[in-house]
Amino acid sequence: MTISSFHPTPRTLMGPGPSDVSPRVLQALSRPTIGHLDPEFVGMMDEMKQLLQYAFKTKNELTFPVSAPGSAGMETCFTNLVEAGDKVVVCQNGVFGGRMKENVTRCGGTAVMVEDDWGKAVDLAKVEQALKDNPDTKILAFVHAETSTGAQSDAKALTALAHAHDCLVIVDAVTSLGGTELRVDDWGIDAIYSGTQKCLSAPPGLSPVSFNERAASVIKNRKTPVQSWFLDLSLVMGYWGGGAKRAYHHTAPVNNLYALHEALVILQEEGIENSWARHAKMHQALRAGIEAMGLEFIVNEADRLPQLNAVTIPEGVDDAAVRSKLLNDYNLEIGAGLGALAGKVWRIGLMGAACNAKNIEYCLNALDEVITNMGAKINSGVAVDTAKAKLA
Amino acid sequence: MTISSFHPTPRTLMGPGPSDVSPRVLQALSRPTIGHLDPEFVGMMDEMKQLLQYAFKTKNELTFPVSAPGSAGMETCFTNLVEAGDKVVVCQNGVFGGRMKENVTRCGGTAVMVEDDWGKAVDLAKVEQALKDNPDTKILAFVHAETSTGAQSDAKALTALAHAHDCLVIVDAVTSLGGTELRVDDWGIDAIYSGTQKCLSAPPGLSPVSFNERAASVIKNRKTPVQSWFLDLSLVMGYWGGGAKRAYHHTAPVNNLYALHEALVILQEEGIENSWARHAKMHQALRAGIEAMGLEFIVNEADRLPQLNAVTIPEGVDDAAVRSKLLNDYNLEIGAGLGALAGKVWRIGLMGAACNAKNIEYCLNALDEVITNMGAKINSGVAVDTAKAKLA
Repeated sequence: MTISSFHPTPRTLMGPGPSDVSPRVLQALSRPTIGHLDPEFVGMMDEMKQLLQYAFKTKNELTFPVSAPGSAGMETCFTNLVEAGDKVVVCQNGVFGGRMKENVTRCGGTAVMVEDDWGKAVDLAKVEQALKDNPDTKILAFVHAETSTGAQSDAKALTALAHAHDCLVIVDAVTSLGGTELRVDDWGIDAIYSGTQKCLSAPPGLSPVSFNERAASVIKNRKTPVQSWFLDLSLVMGYWGGGAKRAYHHTAPVNNLYALHEALVILQEEGIENSWARHAKMHQALRAGIEAMGLEFIVNEADRLPQLNAVTIPEGVDDAAVRSKLLNDYNLEIGAGLGALAGKVWRIGLMGAACNAKNIEYCLNALDEVITNMGAKINSGVAVDTAKAKLA
Repeated sequence: MTISSFHPTPRTLMGPGPSDVSPRVLQALSRPTIGHLDPEFVGMMDEMKQLLQYAFKTKNELTFPVSAPGSAGMETCFTNLVEAGDKVVVCQNGVFGGRMKENVTRCGGTAVMVEDDWGKAVDLAKVEQALKDNPDTKILAFVHAETSTGAQSDAKALTALAHAHDCLVIVDAVTSLGGTELRVDDWGIDAIYSGTQKCLSAPPGLSPVSFNERAASVIKNRKTPVQSWFLDLSLVMGYWGGGAKRAYHHTAPVNNLYALHEALVILQEEGIENSWARHAKMHQALRAGIEAMGLEFIVNEADRLPQLNAVTIPEGVDDAAVRSKLLNDYNLEIGAGLGALAGKVWRIGLMGAACNAKNIEYCLNALDEVITNMGAKINSGVAVDTAKAKLA
């Protein structure tokens, strides 16, 4: 056995994430590793908190990146807020609501499921009914931006509904943060987690989270210890809690934090509202091209995420063959369908650094060529110009 | 608020980890991010398994890096192997045995503690007695290389003892992997976890783990679900389990895996036995210099780790002031004492890429200058030459 260095072929990443990481962020990633208790590093951690507060639009003190991917951010929220016997109303309209249910159950809680069709937004009336039917509910949990379908739910209204029934909310913002409107403080969101590899365009491996005072006080008043030592916020905050005195808890992923810091500096330079507007505008261009080709979106316009475009696969076209051809001949990654939508849709991401006019043209052209060559009946040769017209 | 890019000052990392990351590994880290299901990436994952098998000296199929730092690797072992009501004998001779106890308790298990003085190896006779006294013990857990003290325990003998009492072992090899002799298959270790930022000299953020058939079968036959969704091996292995078909579980920290891959390629190029020998040889040089200066090791020679040198702080010297001066004037990081040893020792790491003659000279010279200037009575001006003589 002799294994040599790995040199990945550069791709254009237009799947459900990771998205294209910019050269600036890759450069930051490769800066010299320093100690996780080095005063310079601690200074960077203070800036990180401010930058994440900016991205989440919050003043929450308890705002930091969990040292593991988004799934661990989800688990941080559930394992700290849910105790055995607690009731949680979980909205499911895609893959990630199901994962929330798993989290509740594994914490010893009871999940009351509110189900909606995949591709639809969470139905407020159903949630209200569930909260009425379950007056002992402690938490309402929902996904703001379903990465598996591209549907957006009304996080502001759902949070208000939860508060009217005296519940906390846990919000999955893995795919929304940086890409669509999200206002943690204005909307009163209690606990939220995200990922770095979607609209922030940092490499995967960290999960930004934020908790308001209300959530923090629920955690402080737990009757039982958090079942995870690694994710126990009462311990983690000895390290991330601010001030000059940082106690060792675990060794932070130093270089990943450099990269996230740089990605957030870029977000701040652009301005978060401008980033939201860019995602909306680019979506309109991609959409125009996709529809001109004759393909269809599975999510209604009103509930559609700009950054995750789930498009039905035209009849007679081999899903996997198309994606392979795009990857091998164009170095272009688009996403497969997940869960109930496997084999039925492609998921075209327009996230962060990957959300730009060049990528849209490149993707529409590649899709058109590949599908046409496979003999599918689409309107060929019009998509790129239609998209360009939208951007003119 | 305007925050600009973060440019860390390059340091020489001779603390308890992270250790110096080589330019080759930093370069690998910054290669273009690709998808976590990209066939090229999946090919790299297969190589990663082989490289980790090489480092652990095992053929275990269930060998892969957990997508989070060493603490999460520890939790992966405990949360998958320990069920509520299980009894675990935990050896504590430093900080990390205490963390193991926390893990057992949070899994609903009972930890029977075997305590040894900090800086001593785990006492085999005490462990044998504990196993005799507790015939219902399921697991013996111990730290191979205590990062908080620099003591090494006899992993081979402890494993044999556990097996003689029909127990599994969980071994903490965070600081030993790559730096001192470790033979998972020959010694029969059932479950083991490590970190990337010690003797492998990759950036922090991943935790290599390995489980043998016996451990895998215990996990397969659990009566209750694993309490962590993120760390549940029955799910994680859908992604890491090998073969071309990889199911999405979480988004892997793609770039961190590039870096670990490169660090392991470097280890393979050197040869792991050569790496062990290098750590041993460099330790002798550092030791000669340290002792020439008049400083003392807290661990007996027989139990001393070459890669983690805990040295008593000379009387009348301000611990924190010395470390600050080394960091600020020499860009040199050495470690503070942890837990019971805080303020009493410095921990000088000789790990991975940082374990070289240049670093030893630099560190001895800096220590000599700083301590002497603070007026401490040491033998000044002899350490570097003494160390050099050892390497000649």
